[in-house]
Amino acid sequence: MNTHKKIIVIGGSAAGPKAASKARRMDEFAEITILQKDNDLSMASCGFPYYVGGFFDDRNMLLSTPTGVVRDQKFYLNAKGIQAKTNTLATFIDRKNKRVDYKDLETGKKGRIDYDKLILATGAKPKLPPVEGIDLEGITTLQSMRDADYLRKIRDDKQIKKAVVIGGGLIGIETTEALQLAGIEITIIEMLPQLLNFLDYELAKLVENYIKTKANIITGSGVAKFIGENGKLTAVKLQNGTEIHCELAVVAMGVAPNISLAKEAGIQTGELGGILVNDFMQTSDPDIYAVGDCIETKNIISHANVLAPYGDLANLQGRVAGENAATENSVIYPGTIQTGICKVFDYHVGATGLSEHMAKTAGNDVISVINASPDKPGFMQGKLLITKLIAQKSTGRILGAKCIGPGDVSKQIAIWAMAIKGNLTVDDMTNADLPYAPPFSLAIDHSIATAHIMQNKIKGRFNGIRATELKQKVDNNEDLFILDARGPDEYEVMRLGIGETLIPLGKLRQRLDELPKDKNKEIIALCKISLRGYEAAVLLMAHGYTNVKVLEGGIMAWHFPREK
Amino acid sequence: MNTHKKIIVIGGSAAGPKAASKARRMDEFAEITILQKDNDLSMASCGFPYYVGGFFDDRNMLLSTPTGVVRDQKFYLNAKGIQAKTNTLATFIDRKNKRVDYKDLETGKKGRIDYDKLILATGAKPKLPPVEGIDLEGITTLQSMRDADYLRKIRDDKQIKKAVVIGGGLIGIETTEALQLAGIEITIIEMLPQLLNFLDYELAKLVENYIKTKANIITGSGVAKFIGENGKLTAVKLQNGTEIHCELAVVAMGVAPNISLAKEAGIQTGELGGILVNDFMQTSDPDIYAVGDCIETKNIISHANVLAPYGDLANLQGRVAGENAATENSVIYPGTIQTGICKVFDYHVGATGLSEHMAKTAGNDVISVINASPDKPGFMQGKLLITKLIAQKSTGRILGAKCIGPGDVSKQIAIWAMAIKGNLTVDDMTNADLPYAPPFSLAIDHSIATAHIMQNKIKGRFNGIRATELKQKVDNNEDLFILDARGPDEYEVMRLGIGETLIPLGKLRQRLDELPKDKNKEIIALCKISLRGYEAAVLLMAHGYTNVKVLEGGIMAWHFPREK
Repeated sequence: MNTHKKIIVIGGSAAGPKAASKARRMDEFAEITILQKDNDLSMASCGFPYYVGGFFDDRNMLLSTPTGVVRDQKFYLNAKGIQAKTNTLATFIDRKNKRVDYKDLETGKKGRIDYDKLILATGAKPKLPPVEGIDLEGITTLQSMRDADYLRKIRDDKQIKKAVVIGGGLIGIETTEALQLAGIEITIIEMLPQLLNFLDYELAKLVENYIKTKANIITGSGVAKFIGENGKLTAVKLQNGTEIHCELAVVAMGVAPNISLAKEAGIQTGELGGILVNDFMQTSDPDIYAVGDCIETKNIISHANVLAPYGDLANLQGRVAGENAATENSVIYPGTIQTGICKVFDYHVGATGLSEHMAKTAGNDVISVINASPDKPGFMQGKLLITKLIAQKSTGRILGAKCIGPGDVSKQIAIWAMAIKGNLTVDDMTNADLPYAPPFSLAIDHSIATAHIMQNKIKGRFNGIRATELKQKVDNNEDLFILDARGPDEYEVMRLGIGETLIPLGKLRQRLDELPKDKNKEIIALCKISLRGYEAAVLLMAHGYTNVKVLEGGIMAWHFPREK
Repeated sequence: MNTHKKIIVIGGSAAGPKAASKARRMDEFAEITILQKDNDLSMASCGFPYYVGGFFDDRNMLLSTPTGVVRDQKFYLNAKGIQAKTNTLATFIDRKNKRVDYKDLETGKKGRIDYDKLILATGAKPKLPPVEGIDLEGITTLQSMRDADYLRKIRDDKQIKKAVVIGGGLIGIETTEALQLAGIEITIIEMLPQLLNFLDYELAKLVENYIKTKANIITGSGVAKFIGENGKLTAVKLQNGTEIHCELAVVAMGVAPNISLAKEAGIQTGELGGILVNDFMQTSDPDIYAVGDCIETKNIISHANVLAPYGDLANLQGRVAGENAATENSVIYPGTIQTGICKVFDYHVGATGLSEHMAKTAGNDVISVINASPDKPGFMQGKLLITKLIAQKSTGRILGAKCIGPGDVSKQIAIWAMAIKGNLTVDDMTNADLPYAPPFSLAIDHSIATAHIMQNKIKGRFNGIRATELKQKVDNNEDLFILDARGPDEYEVMRLGIGETLIPLGKLRQRLDELPKDKNKEIIALCKISLRGYEAAVLLMAHGYTNVKVLEGGIMAWHFPREK
């Protein structure tokens, strides 16, 4: 009689193979089977946009180990002792008898295997707009290896001139870059008022300003209809009536957990449409685990369930479920803080923790600040970073950070993700001890400088105003004195043109008589990044001006058109 | 009667101007004076090697604000309302009467000013070898703006062919790069057995292997004598008798706190030779603060006093002292974890927290592990990172991390520095939520993978052996079975050649009969980075082999010569 544990994993993309491999390392003699509906296994699906965009040409690099061995059925059998059945669809889970029915999609043959432990890694399926013409040729997602092959062929064929990307989230933005690099003119359509919904509004608008140098953007309108001729896409019609001529449309409206198999088996699912799991990654059936894009996971800060379909979390969850399936629950997965990042041409966009809106919704007393400064010294070609930091006002606890710009966003977000992981406060961050040398950072790292500004704000020394609020005041013709504290040469090259008065910081003490006589009048101080703006504000407050604000992030964080 | 607070800052490099500027922001009406013995102010001294190396040509960039305004006396007066006296040496502190004597080094005139609060930022002075010939022309340090100008001129003049760098620490290594880029042949002389003493030995040797492709290295020998002709350096003679012909020698043996003024004034100094301060940065005289390279500061992990002459800490300490001097102690500086980083050509070297040796000395039960893996996927041109992680074995608390390689070391060290700041454990790090997308990291970031290996080691699943120990066993002809688990093609291109047997991981289950009959025999498993080595070891242990070890970091962390 065979007493080896039988572990079945349904799903062969990221979380599934990771779970299977970890289970193998925990139990050399378990019978481990992966059922994978696609032809490929363990695809680096986050790499699809870079394959499409021509960052590399060898498709197998998406499917290979670092030493170039393709992770196919043979690889799993030989190197891992895992039987991976590809082109094999799991059709039914019989929980009572602990077995899974499946169908070979090539031969049509059906089969059935027993399990002791089952791991669901069924992933997610792309959301599609429920409109006319969705079946036209020329409409695709970028979700599967097949999609990647399709779009890569379009790049290589060089026939298509215009494309529409539907959805301005991470995948939409990455796809935009890929197709633009293929020489295609892109229009991004986003139903919400901004791209990259995980970003706070002001930052999203700054990113949009950059992307507009590479692609067209239409926000606030969805797709009404796909228009075609002879079965081929020729245009996308928007809800606002606009028709955009195009030969290709990539739908990137996000994904929904693929839970039909679990639901049919009576496994508990949540309000967000994902499979519910505990910290062991166990579903409502203790012999069945679930991992990756098909589950709901816990946001560690807000304690709310969230959908977090990220490749890194899929791997970490897979590792936990694989170990637990093999060992009867020895490790836990604590949840996510929803850290994410994407590259869009020479710009980087990252986020971790809660947005200001999410933080308020979760019941926090929230304070936030925007900081703009370079990542490195000018003499080392430092590049701009703009960070919005979100904290609990009463305790200073860091709740979230968003960072954008051409600079090293990845390190900034890693720093804030770790600060949140360690439950650190703004005060803690003001004296963080980070690696400094001019090729890597400023002497006071951007993250630490952001904490300094936040600390000043919490202590009431820095009264900030956001670009949006200032623009509104200007548009309403409110009675303001706007002080630009830069030098005349800088002012000649670039300026807001919203009625500001130029008094360089270095002349301010001598030219206080040019300030309003009424010391209670609202004064807004600014400069390029609002460092001098802040010093000007502090100076004025010391001289009795009572209503002085600093434009947060300065001209660099002004997302409206400038005079110059 | 003038009731404005009088604040004097002695020292105008990094910590001093920062303290003065912060004091100004806290108190617009204080009388703030900087006494600076040099001609320049607020020099970005960490940038000197990059000016010398030709990364930029405009000397003023080292002295300017981000918008290009030189931070000279006029700048401090106008923009900050601070009187900066340059070329002015503070000669005596009269604590009883609270005044400082000074001397104008250009005119010889003496002066005296009163203080309410005094901030000492007297910095450090370079250590020099007490040997014959130290005064010859052609011997310099790279500590002052004058040194930087001198070496930059040597670069521009293109006359000098050979130079010796004395000292293989951070500055020595950065200077080596700068001078090599100037077309000069370099020999580095280090008295200790390794370069970069803050690195653990194995990692230092890997860095040395890289640097040897650019410069000559002599470790384990110091300078006995400088040899000259007509007052000019012609050679350096080592303690081991070797004579190295050269026209230039840069002494980079580290720095010692500059405390003569403080000592003379009876201010308390410590065993390490620095001024002692409390968390407010106050010296034994409560009206006198001290900051930057002249002080001893606290290592937060070991609680021991340390010398930490880093530019970033100088700035942070200056900020704290400036605020406290202006406000009667409202903020604290918690200490350092001695995070540092340097660039050497295309290689990066970083450290944070304790080394294994320091951790043991501080009384910890220490466990450490070495991990080698790329920073990004192969298809995004990932580059190698090698990390040594140090933790408390009983609690898993992270104590230190060192990271080297051509990959993104800066982000890795920032992550570990934050982990230490947050008192995180290895278990915490196994599920860290870091920003993942292929342009920025692997799906499982190098830092998280390192935590996974450490967790396996703590749980007894991963029995590691270091290159040094394995080499010793091989040299002693110990009875070992060394298993290389890579593919034959890889083995042809690169291999250790220490008697290893090649059995690819994918064949291992079928070829177990080629393993030693004695299941207690010592087996060492390895591959390029020891991922497959680890899988092979786990497999063998499951098949009853009792003494299986994994070569930590694999071939990539082998610092001895290889057969291929």
